[in-house]
Amino acid sequence: MHIVGELINSSRREVNEAIKVRNAGFIEDLAKRQANCGVNHIDVNAGVFLQEEPAILSWLVQTVQGVVDLPCTLDSPNPKAIEAALAVHRGQAMINSISLEQERYHALLPIVADSDLKVIALCMSDGGMPSTAEERLRIAEKLIDGLQQKNVPLYNIYVDPLVQPICTNNDFGVEFLNAVEQVMSQFHGVHTMCGMSNISFGLPNRKLLNQTFMAMAITKGLDGAILNPLDEGMMSTIRAAEVLAGRDEFCMKYTNQFRASNHWALNNYQLRDR
Amino acid sequence: MHIVGELINSSRREVNEAIKVRNAGFIEDLAKRQANCGVNHIDVNAGVFLQEEPAILSWLVQTVQGVVDLPCTLDSPNPKAIEAALAVHRGQAMINSISLEQERYHALLPIVADSDLKVIALCMSDGGMPSTAEERLRIAEKLIDGLQQKNVPLYNIYVDPLVQPICTNNDFGVEFLNAVEQVMSQFHGVHTMCGMSNISFGLPNRKLLNQTFMAMAITKGLDGAILNPLDEGMMSTIRAAEVLAGRDEFCMKYTNQFRASNHWALNNYQLRDR
Repeated sequence: MHIVGELINSSRREVNEAIKVRNAGFIEDLAKRQANCGVNHIDVNAGVFLQEEPAILSWLVQTVQGVVDLPCTLDSPNPKAIEAALAVHRGQAMINSISLEQERYHALLPIVADSDLKVIALCMSDGGMPSTAEERLRIAEKLIDGLQQKNVPLYNIYVDPLVQPICTNNDFGVEFLNAVEQVMSQFHGVHTMCGMSNISFGLPNRKLLNQTFMAMAITKGLDGAILNPLDEGMMSTIRAAEVLAGRDEFCMKYTNQFRASNHWALNNYQLRDR
Repeated sequence: MHIVGELINSSRREVNEAIKVRNAGFIEDLAKRQANCGVNHIDVNAGVFLQEEPAILSWLVQTVQGVVDLPCTLDSPNPKAIEAALAVHRGQAMINSISLEQERYHALLPIVADSDLKVIALCMSDGGMPSTAEERLRIAEKLIDGLQQKNVPLYNIYVDPLVQPICTNNDFGVEFLNAVEQVMSQFHGVHTMCGMSNISFGLPNRKLLNQTFMAMAITKGLDGAILNPLDEGMMSTIRAAEVLAGRDEFCMKYTNQFRASNHWALNNYQLRDR
């Protein structure tokens, strides 16, 4: 599972305030805590700062990579911000995200063309948000085709089929899950990636819904996620689902994580409780 | 989701002791508490009492149905015990379970033949426990064929593909899940049903694995389960997975259960926590 830690985002109040005063310690701490949870990329977003975005995104990359040995996910539709950040970035960055919206598409395609960048391909077009698996697949096909024509290999593409709130349409869960399955089976070697939390919008006990939906999506082949890695419930669910999906040889990652997180007391309780 | 409450089982120490002294109050309490959780059938098992099994299974049925308006799942391979229990049972009982093991098969087939009984068809044969989805499907096909020849309709058959411990073989999860999917798609109208807890045998944090595997199995179409309905984590996971699988119109069951279980405080905490 390719996990992107989402916490360094300028739309979050505390991060926003830290950026304004260039509080590097706060950003470094968020980077280290996410790295300790085993993430693969650290998302950096300076979107709310508009004109300053290129400078701030570069500062975020340098601040993060000053303390952790991980690549960043550059979370912006602004080619100037991405180019500035890439100029100081070490390792294989990920772009979050290209879509079929024409302005965004044409702004970002030249950046990923002929590069070794990873890229999230969001199933969104100027026609609006897709509802069905078929609509998602049609957008994914066009994005993958366009990226491949520019020499972006399948294994660097992370299709995001776009999670939508189940409370607005009972079928949105199934349509998303079927899109994951179809993308993974039709484009062998491609990845899928998404944020989960929109699924539970408007409903009680959102964490339960988000975690349950993660397990369901992994069942259909999802192999990437953007999330808060400090959420132990979600991270444990992912480790469990990976064991159960046959992706964790000898259950090693699961048992190691369990030992590391000192849950033995809880387990002993449960064994006695049976 | 068709849920069978599993707690009235003579292999559990407290139930065993209650049965020995015919402590009806203990059994009644277990029946009422399970009924309050919304189960569809209440499993009764008197297997450890051997010669006394027919008399005790009948007593359990009468004791349960004296206080709750639910049918029972008669959990026995012994046709005499099942016949004695059926003689006093009200409503549509379920038999747990027929299998392709020849002794059990020939003992139970005459009981379900030409009846309106529901029956669990366990994917087990004298050739041992199946490993792959294909082996499970082959047994399921024979069981379904044999039952249909005896006029048992598909909608009364609950195929149990047999959960096996993931720690003994990393593929056991996927093979089980694929069996659920294949049984549900090949035999339109049939049900699937299982106990989950074997999946996590030998691993830490078993409840997490069991719940996660339940969500994964529901993704593949599982529509029945034998479980401890007092396990709030498991029951919440099932309600969440049913919403997300599009099986809960307007999310009504989910939101009603949430209100009933007084989790608002938890939810408010989580909303603040975002």
